[in-house]
Amino acid sequence: MESTKTPGEMSRRQFLSTVGKLGGGAAVFSVMGTLGLLSPETMKAADFVPPDGNELSMSKRGGKKIIILGAGIAGMTAAYELGQAGYDCTILEARARSGGRIWSVRRGTTVAEVGASKQVARFADGLYFNAGPMRIPQFHVTMEYIRKFGIPIEPFNNVNEHAYYYNENVGELSGKKIRKREAKADVRGYVSELMAKAVNQNALDMPLTAEEKEKLVAYLRSEGGLDADLFYKASSRGGYKDEPGARLDAGVVRDPFSMKAILNSGFGNYFSSEYSYDQQMMMFHPVGGIDAIPNAFEKRLKGKIKFHSEVIEILQSDTGVTVHYKDLASGEERKIEGEYCICTIPLSVLKSIKSDFSPEMKQAIDSIGYASAGKIGLQFSRRFWEEDEQIYGGNTLTNMDITSIYYPPTGYMQKKGLLLGYYTFGANADKLGEMTYLGREAHALQQGAKIHPQYHKEFEASFSVDWKRIKYNLGGWVSYTGDQRTTVYPTLCKPDRRVYLAGEHMSYITAWMAGGIESARAVVTDIHQRVMKE
Amino acid sequence: MESTKTPGEMSRRQFLSTVGKLGGGAAVFSVMGTLGLLSPETMKAADFVPPDGNELSMSKRGGKKIIILGAGIAGMTAAYELGQAGYDCTILEARARSGGRIWSVRRGTTVAEVGASKQVARFADGLYFNAGPMRIPQFHVTMEYIRKFGIPIEPFNNVNEHAYYYNENVGELSGKKIRKREAKADVRGYVSELMAKAVNQNALDMPLTAEEKEKLVAYLRSEGGLDADLFYKASSRGGYKDEPGARLDAGVVRDPFSMKAILNSGFGNYFSSEYSYDQQMMMFHPVGGIDAIPNAFEKRLKGKIKFHSEVIEILQSDTGVTVHYKDLASGEERKIEGEYCICTIPLSVLKSIKSDFSPEMKQAIDSIGYASAGKIGLQFSRRFWEEDEQIYGGNTLTNMDITSIYYPPTGYMQKKGLLLGYYTFGANADKLGEMTYLGREAHALQQGAKIHPQYHKEFEASFSVDWKRIKYNLGGWVSYTGDQRTTVYPTLCKPDRRVYLAGEHMSYITAWMAGGIESARAVVTDIHQRVMKE
Repeated sequence: MESTKTPGEMSRRQFLSTVGKLGGGAAVFSVMGTLGLLSPETMKAADFVPPDGNELSMSKRGGKKIIILGAGIAGMTAAYELGQAGYDCTILEARARSGGRIWSVRRGTTVAEVGASKQVARFADGLYFNAGPMRIPQFHVTMEYIRKFGIPIEPFNNVNEHAYYYNENVGELSGKKIRKREAKADVRGYVSELMAKAVNQNALDMPLTAEEKEKLVAYLRSEGGLDADLFYKASSRGGYKDEPGARLDAGVVRDPFSMKAILNSGFGNYFSSEYSYDQQMMMFHPVGGIDAIPNAFEKRLKGKIKFHSEVIEILQSDTGVTVHYKDLASGEERKIEGEYCICTIPLSVLKSIKSDFSPEMKQAIDSIGYASAGKIGLQFSRRFWEEDEQIYGGNTLTNMDITSIYYPPTGYMQKKGLLLGYYTFGANADKLGEMTYLGREAHALQQGAKIHPQYHKEFEASFSVDWKRIKYNLGGWVSYTGDQRTTVYPTLCKPDRRVYLAGEHMSYITAWMAGGIESARAVVTDIHQRVMKE
Repeated sequence: MESTKTPGEMSRRQFLSTVGKLGGGAAVFSVMGTLGLLSPETMKAADFVPPDGNELSMSKRGGKKIIILGAGIAGMTAAYELGQAGYDCTILEARARSGGRIWSVRRGTTVAEVGASKQVARFADGLYFNAGPMRIPQFHVTMEYIRKFGIPIEPFNNVNEHAYYYNENVGELSGKKIRKREAKADVRGYVSELMAKAVNQNALDMPLTAEEKEKLVAYLRSEGGLDADLFYKASSRGGYKDEPGARLDAGVVRDPFSMKAILNSGFGNYFSSEYSYDQQMMMFHPVGGIDAIPNAFEKRLKGKIKFHSEVIEILQSDTGVTVHYKDLASGEERKIEGEYCICTIPLSVLKSIKSDFSPEMKQAIDSIGYASAGKIGLQFSRRFWEEDEQIYGGNTLTNMDITSIYYPPTGYMQKKGLLLGYYTFGANADKLGEMTYLGREAHALQQGAKIHPQYHKEFEASFSVDWKRIKYNLGGWVSYTGDQRTTVYPTLCKPDRRVYLAGEHMSYITAWMAGGIESARAVVTDIHQRVMKE
């Protein structure tokens, strides 16, 4: 997959790279826009012009040493791109594995959360869950490396109308599991009905012509599934109480919930979770586990990653950077020197590492908070959500602590299955995170069983992760608050002499692998330009 | 996959089958409902209790011969289920292949439409399109056979916000391709804004309390992405004109279209195509082609299907049925006799086959129309929709003749790709169907290139199907009109002496494989009960 260039034909990338060298990034954008084929997403993806491998060697500046801290996606992207351009990169990674938060939990995976005992995943072979990132919007730059490295992918079912909403203490529909399609049909139906009638009665103040009003009513009829008189009545969109079948079995459409019941349920507020830019379908994930991505990078960075290397101190001089680290295998302290350093360590961890960063930089690093996030994988002896309830992937949302249940978007119809018993953020994540592993399991089972009583009989094994308690991460993702993006963030964005920060926290695509990649690519470009000017 | 029963434990199916024998179908429903785990969809799927294989042999009525006409999904389901119960089934199939409309077109596939020359698919190895059914709702009975037969499946991307709407002659947005998310954000935004303000101004006549009105406004704010003052302004839900990226690159959200422009575009009327019960996500399809389903049945019906056998006449006596057919391989006329006959031949074809059906039955068969439907597969040298436009599966909708473009929900990131250049119904299908193969190709390319200019450079090969012109089908699916469901349809549902009709046309799940399966299962039950009463 990595070389698909037609001999004798200039590839688009080569062409754009040439344009970039002649006229810079702005020229690239302009040419691509003129080609007329390319979306903003494509233009963003093509924004990065990798350093030309010939430039460094021709400049006689070859062999520049770059120290990279952290073998997550940002560190490995930087090492990969700089390596392609002839730089000599070394990654220090405290763990025995690459990927950072990109982490698939499967049989034999272990973790000891901070202050807790060791947890071992005792899942069946072939089952896994992705404890960190688990889905990729189709337009993210991440897909570019997936293509380049030939990583097999499959859809991540982020939308499933056959999954449930389940809320407690919301009136009439409390404690009832409702297929998402039911809530959507009813809410859209009632709201469209109200609106269509108001438009027809000229009750709304709108700058529309009569013809446009007709179009609006036609839309509302379509959107709400209204009848000819603009009433929302029973509609198959919400499903059936008796499914249609063979011959004379026309089926019986379900009865809508009352407007009051569905309004008080709060289910309508869940709809927009599917509307946000980076949650919209289609989404994808690697077959067999998200760690296929770091694994693919790692394979291309043979010998460049020093594992078990915990950074202790970062010191700089006028000509270079010295990083002191502890070799966790031998227990010995070591140091490594380079001309530049790319630090991808999460700020939540970096704040406790000694350095001679400027006071402004230290203060900025100190000030940034991280989001709470937690997941639990639950293995069941039977995929009852598929067999009994016909739910293949997607998620169920609830106002209980567990927040959501994610059904596996892979391995359909296999015997056993592993679902996410919760994926929580914020206060719910904190509450669950404070529990023991067994406490979390019990809580996930107790609440989940209200939606899936099959939990009681079919449960086999769990493994939970609270990102605030995972050493070397200490948080789910960066969480800028208030005016931090305009006050302290700009300081983080500038290099501290010879040290550049990278990672999802150094982007406006926080919490996504794409943020790590984009920030790494920006640093790669900066370092290369700086080296060529030296 | 076929035997996952735990020894010593009564399977749910066995249990329900037992209940069914003791108390009939109603008892099964009741017990399942009481179990409390099972949805209407599950109950429908479990509605069918296969004839017990022991009953026929114990009754000494063994060896009953059943003639089945057509090796589509209905015919093969009937043969499979009756075969399991000890019946001696023979399927007559005019074609050299099974599946009927379940047909994957790939390298070497040929067809001569009625009155036209032979068309040969010259696609690259591994590329295919499904000319008939191509997607399966997760709750359809079809999934039961997929599970039973262990057929690998993958999601069918029926929803993709990154694909386009493209309309002509609709005002300001004419001739512009718009990402679906743009239209959805704007329409939902403006409509929610209007509605929220009307609610706040008490302009709507609603039986809601003040607290409920607040909830309604909160929902509208969430649904429309409104700001605190209930205005719809720029929102990332609709995407960016400059994508966010690394460090200080916060991105620039796109400007919404004006309310008038988006209203006149008609795009809002496309939204509900995703809402209908059988189009909602998640949907699935077999890996490698939908014909994996008929192939799996065929494998289990070894020696029971007589291919190249074109039915000429269906005659009945008091004790049996005689079907005269032409062996297309030898050209000879032959006949076969059985005690019962299941006829799955589409009514559009059956109406021209001689029979001694009752006058009522003949008249009913004659009166039913079939839907027009057509597809064209277009092979391109490059998956530009993925590479340039980040569209992985899903469809683009348009008011041009081509109606829709479907991007392949499989083979992501491969070099070449095959998309559906059109999938049309009704008048558009008729218009395209009347053209020659080359005419359709030219039309699909000319219109599609307005959306994807890459068509010009990358096109390689096409294959088109107009179902009204496909021998042995003569139509896409049954199309009951007016009051036919209450007038002539009941006649079709009753056996004509010893001949039972089955197929999607004998169901309320028309146009779906599930309709064929359900109708076949109903006939299987009827025939078995009749035999046991003889």
